[in-house]
Amino acid sequence: MVSLENIYHVCEETVPLYFAMILGYLSIKLWHLFTPEQCAGINKFVSKFSIPLLSFQVISTNNPYQMNTKLVISDALQKALAFFGFLIVTKICCEKSMDWLITGISVSTLPNTLIVGIPLLRGMYGDEAVRLITQIVVLQSLVWYIILLIFFEYRALKLSSEVATATQVTGKERNSNSDISGELESGERQTREENREEQVANKTSTKTSLSFMLNVGKKIAVNPNTYASLAGLVWSLISYRWRIKQPTIINNSLHILSDGGLGMAMFSLGLFTASQSKIIACGARTAVLSLVLRFILGPSIMAIASYVVGMRGLLLKIAIVQAALPQGIVPFVFAKEYGVHPDILSMGIIVGMIAAVPIALAYYFLIGVI
Amino acid sequence: MVSLENIYHVCEETVPLYFAMILGYLSIKLWHLFTPEQCAGINKFVSKFSIPLLSFQVISTNNPYQMNTKLVISDALQKALAFFGFLIVTKICCEKSMDWLITGISVSTLPNTLIVGIPLLRGMYGDEAVRLITQIVVLQSLVWYIILLIFFEYRALKLSSEVATATQVTGKERNSNSDISGELESGERQTREENREEQVANKTSTKTSLSFMLNVGKKIAVNPNTYASLAGLVWSLISYRWRIKQPTIINNSLHILSDGGLGMAMFSLGLFTASQSKIIACGARTAVLSLVLRFILGPSIMAIASYVVGMRGLLLKIAIVQAALPQGIVPFVFAKEYGVHPDILSMGIIVGMIAAVPIALAYYFLIGVI
Repeated sequence: MVSLENIYHVCEETVPLYFAMILGYLSIKLWHLFTPEQCAGINKFVSKFSIPLLSFQVISTNNPYQMNTKLVISDALQKALAFFGFLIVTKICCEKSMDWLITGISVSTLPNTLIVGIPLLRGMYGDEAVRLITQIVVLQSLVWYIILLIFFEYRALKLSSEVATATQVTGKERNSNSDISGELESGERQTREENREEQVANKTSTKTSLSFMLNVGKKIAVNPNTYASLAGLVWSLISYRWRIKQPTIINNSLHILSDGGLGMAMFSLGLFTASQSKIIACGARTAVLSLVLRFILGPSIMAIASYVVGMRGLLLKIAIVQAALPQGIVPFVFAKEYGVHPDILSMGIIVGMIAAVPIALAYYFLIGVI
Repeated sequence: MVSLENIYHVCEETVPLYFAMILGYLSIKLWHLFTPEQCAGINKFVSKFSIPLLSFQVISTNNPYQMNTKLVISDALQKALAFFGFLIVTKICCEKSMDWLITGISVSTLPNTLIVGIPLLRGMYGDEAVRLITQIVVLQSLVWYIILLIFFEYRALKLSSEVATATQVTGKERNSNSDISGELESGERQTREENREEQVANKTSTKTSLSFMLNVGKKIAVNPNTYASLAGLVWSLISYRWRIKQPTIINNSLHILSDGGLGMAMFSLGLFTASQSKIIACGARTAVLSLVLRFILGPSIMAIASYVVGMRGLLLKIAIVQAALPQGIVPFVFAKEYGVHPDILSMGIIVGMIAAVPIALAYYFLIGVI
């Protein structure tokens, strides 16, 4: 059973997050401390320094040789189930199916594990939970976010090739219109044109897949969080293999900035919340739908995947609760960059953060009773 | 004797500070990450949140019932000696004597104890040194900075009254010039004017001292660091009197932002350094003089004061080394606000930071040998 003491422990870990977020919110709404440009500076500091260093710190202290196989498999299974489910539904129901596929997966399967997850689960289930959720953080940073990025890039490629085809078709139509008089030559010219087009399409395809990979590579290369996560993984592989500890001097150097990462990230989320003119900009229906995806569908799929894989007891509980955390921030950053429903994801982050603790506690109770 | 291990401990504590500062510096000079306005946002965050919360955290964990009387007296004595010394010298040698008096005191007696002092002295002499330097932090935040502010306000008042007198004199001269024809009435009118002036000067003086106190009060009221320090003191008085501990929930809420305070402050110092077009803007001679005041005169006066008070052994060592820390940041903020040689203080902070560790180690050796 869940006791009042349990709830207090959860509050001990989560209230500070809200404290930092509310300070950020008030510093705009009440104290008018920062201009939008100044907020951008703080956000940039958070995304370029605080979060990457926090990621490094968390991932580098995770023992990669003792990953929980069941957790890893069920996490992958949840993503796969969600992918195929959304693929079918969006193909049938939606016009811009690719956009909704990406948004659906982002909203339902990618929770905020690093910033909200670790403190919240520590409050609920103690340090063992932190060890487990850290593994989810590793997978999220190094596998799922990169796959998500590939999806976004693939969509961008598809869009640009559609635009190119449309331009080509328009061009051809224009040609045939202007050349009505010379019908005799048209057959010959058409054959020539088709040959040339075929060659270009051969060439274009190679070029496209190369530029596609280059684009993905570029996005990864400019993202300090990927670097930091990868460096964290490499270091953890070395340090747990040969039992090498980081020299205190390096450890302290990283901690001096990463220690504030959590608070800065929440503060910056408060700034972000205050700067939104409309929190539910995506419309009430879409908002409710996306919250259902986040807080009910996502954890349900995870529960099924975890149960199928054979998880029971504490491990199962942790797997479900972590899937019911609020919306992650990285998918929003991507969504904004590529222009794919950023309004839904920003709503998900803000409303999700506000609802996070009650919902997590509801799951905690529910699972505790079962 | 000072061993290599001692030096390594000092580096463990100080290299992280430089790491954060260099990151800040490079993010402007090399990566061009932040615009000046964005830097201002980060600096504002540091001065309004990070540093006050750090001050609170440090001061609230200091036991005010176990202050080291000798340290408190010698600290006050150092300030008094410096004050009277500079008063005499500036009266004799300088034109704007008040400006130089304030700058002299700022440079020689107000080191960076909170950000640089605590880690550096922990590296040198362990936690006992931290306990002692924390007492210096308390005095600095709640006594010396407020007195320094009073000096600045007094100077501003003096300046404005000088300007007012000059205007009055000019006015009178203009009057007498234009009224040369009416010499008969002039005697009578002069008497009347003098009476009126006397009354105004009675009234003005009361008003002035009231507005003076109001100004000082206002400056203190808008400075979150004073609030935070005072709150820290009040809390420490309560908690050490009745042995009450902060609830974890509040403690965590403060730590979530203050934990990053040190790193953020150093990062922001790096931004500041990068944004200076000229580091030694005050001229080489003045720079050398101010460095001598900071690193030789200040510690020397402290050494004398401490020895006179009867300090010996570790306590004496700590008192001297803390007086040889680089220039504090608060006096620079005041100097910039009131326009009193900010160039000297900014140079002192930057060059002082670069020279801090070698100089502190030099003192450490010197004192270790003695």
